[in-house]
Amino acid sequence: MSIVTVGTVAFDAIETPFGKTDKIVGGAATYIAWSASYFTKPINIVSIIGDDFDMNELEALKNRGVNTDGIEIRTGEKSFFWSGKYHNDMNSRDTLVTDLNVLLSFNPILPESYKNGEYLMLGNIDPALQIKVIEQMTTRPKLIVMDTMNFWMDIALDTLKKAISMVDVLTINDEEARQLSGQYSLVKAAKVIHEMGPKFLVIKKGEHGALLFHNGEVFFAPALPLEDVFDPTGAGDTFAGGFIGHLAKTGDISFDNMKRAIIYGSAMASFCVEKFGTEALKSLTQEAIDNRVNEFVKLAHFSV
Amino acid sequence: MSIVTVGTVAFDAIETPFGKTDKIVGGAATYIAWSASYFTKPINIVSIIGDDFDMNELEALKNRGVNTDGIEIRTGEKSFFWSGKYHNDMNSRDTLVTDLNVLLSFNPILPESYKNGEYLMLGNIDPALQIKVIEQMTTRPKLIVMDTMNFWMDIALDTLKKAISMVDVLTINDEEARQLSGQYSLVKAAKVIHEMGPKFLVIKKGEHGALLFHNGEVFFAPALPLEDVFDPTGAGDTFAGGFIGHLAKTGDISFDNMKRAIIYGSAMASFCVEKFGTEALKSLTQEAIDNRVNEFVKLAHFSV
Repeated sequence: MSIVTVGTVAFDAIETPFGKTDKIVGGAATYIAWSASYFTKPINIVSIIGDDFDMNELEALKNRGVNTDGIEIRTGEKSFFWSGKYHNDMNSRDTLVTDLNVLLSFNPILPESYKNGEYLMLGNIDPALQIKVIEQMTTRPKLIVMDTMNFWMDIALDTLKKAISMVDVLTINDEEARQLSGQYSLVKAAKVIHEMGPKFLVIKKGEHGALLFHNGEVFFAPALPLEDVFDPTGAGDTFAGGFIGHLAKTGDISFDNMKRAIIYGSAMASFCVEKFGTEALKSLTQEAIDNRVNEFVKLAHFSV
Repeated sequence: MSIVTVGTVAFDAIETPFGKTDKIVGGAATYIAWSASYFTKPINIVSIIGDDFDMNELEALKNRGVNTDGIEIRTGEKSFFWSGKYHNDMNSRDTLVTDLNVLLSFNPILPESYKNGEYLMLGNIDPALQIKVIEQMTTRPKLIVMDTMNFWMDIALDTLKKAISMVDVLTINDEEARQLSGQYSLVKAAKVIHEMGPKFLVIKKGEHGALLFHNGEVFFAPALPLEDVFDPTGAGDTFAGGFIGHLAKTGDISFDNMKRAIIYGSAMASFCVEKFGTEALKSLTQEAIDNRVNEFVKLAHFSV
């Protein structure tokens, strides 16, 4: 089934203890689309870029079944640019540059063909824009998944809460869940956030895995322990892409299938961090993904 | 099968965001013995206390099938005392008082009846004493499990490495695994630590669960998300007690059974943190433990 996703399509410059990149293609919607493209098609992106963007990268996405008709190309303007440097532990980073550029005046307009999409993935972006995208859908999607971050809790909490009230699944990290709920215990935080609207809450804990809360039940998916984490950029978006990709592919939004979706998302994220940027996501095979998922089975399963 | 354990039997005074205690009974061997007593008997403790100790607490342990013959009672001296205050996140704490008292001159002497114990649990204590205990065993135990902490890495690394070289299972936390191995990646850290001797490595990550590494394989057990963590004191020791308790009960030290042991240890630790000190460990039932283990099954299991 089709997926609509809104988010940034951008340039990143990344420095990690393993090396640094020049401007490479990144952005939430880019990672989501690459990741989801291994599960279903079309992936319909809504975004904005300048005419400085690397159009070969859009072609590469199109070749994966990604529809880029909803990506506005602003002539004479520059694409969103972010630059950051990761600390040795890879769990924290300093932002060196944030040039919003075209994002400053982004007003997402959905092509007609997007408006009855069945699965909607709202990448991390201004919640006012996430709401605009939801409001343009002519039929309520079967599932709306929303990613966000602490930045929007700090500067646009009311709008953020309105967006959250409109979605089925919220994905945030543990510190964000605590900030949003005012509760330190993640069990209590989940209850508060369920009250805000989302029936499903995914709490992402990076190298410590992810939790799925729903209706008093909880599921935990570990992160795969890796020899090297090369570049964590985009891991959360790649997770989201695999998560909604699996759900859209199967058309099943039961709790049991959400568990599988979390595992597929985690598997995709584990590939993502093994190389810089989107590189690892460009040459995966179904066999590699299945093998990776089997590593999660071996990692997590036990009999009593 | 029988377990021999060495470690502190002591007084703690604990302050958490939920309240504070006067002197209550604690110590690594106390938590290990309470926890393991739900799995097998006898649990043979080697330790030292002063005559200020609460002898009713020793009686309570004896009533659980714990043998306290190896606990030296030093007349006119005081028991080891530790006092600490947990921060709001419960993941970090300040030590307020450490009075070593009788521990300063502790020289563990094993009663004859301990010397052919099949399972040996070395609680966190001076590695020189851990070695002394191993050397007094007349037959090599079927399994030696050793807990330790960063303090001994800082001040007694050579002795610690000698002790580590003599054991089958090492249990440490993630930061300690990184410090001991000089590797940030836990996968690489495990390889380095296996080279030091232990065929099995358990990395405890507190609220983030625990990893078991063995022979290129890895298993992950989540921590149970709890409404409230009341007092984390002794959680690691309680984990160790449940871990070796299950192994001794079943007499099976295969990797598959070690996975189950990790889950039992995690279940016991999840009880421990729900109340102050050893309180929660004093009134468990087999049914409560089985139900808690089933919560871990629901938490971690998925089908693909």
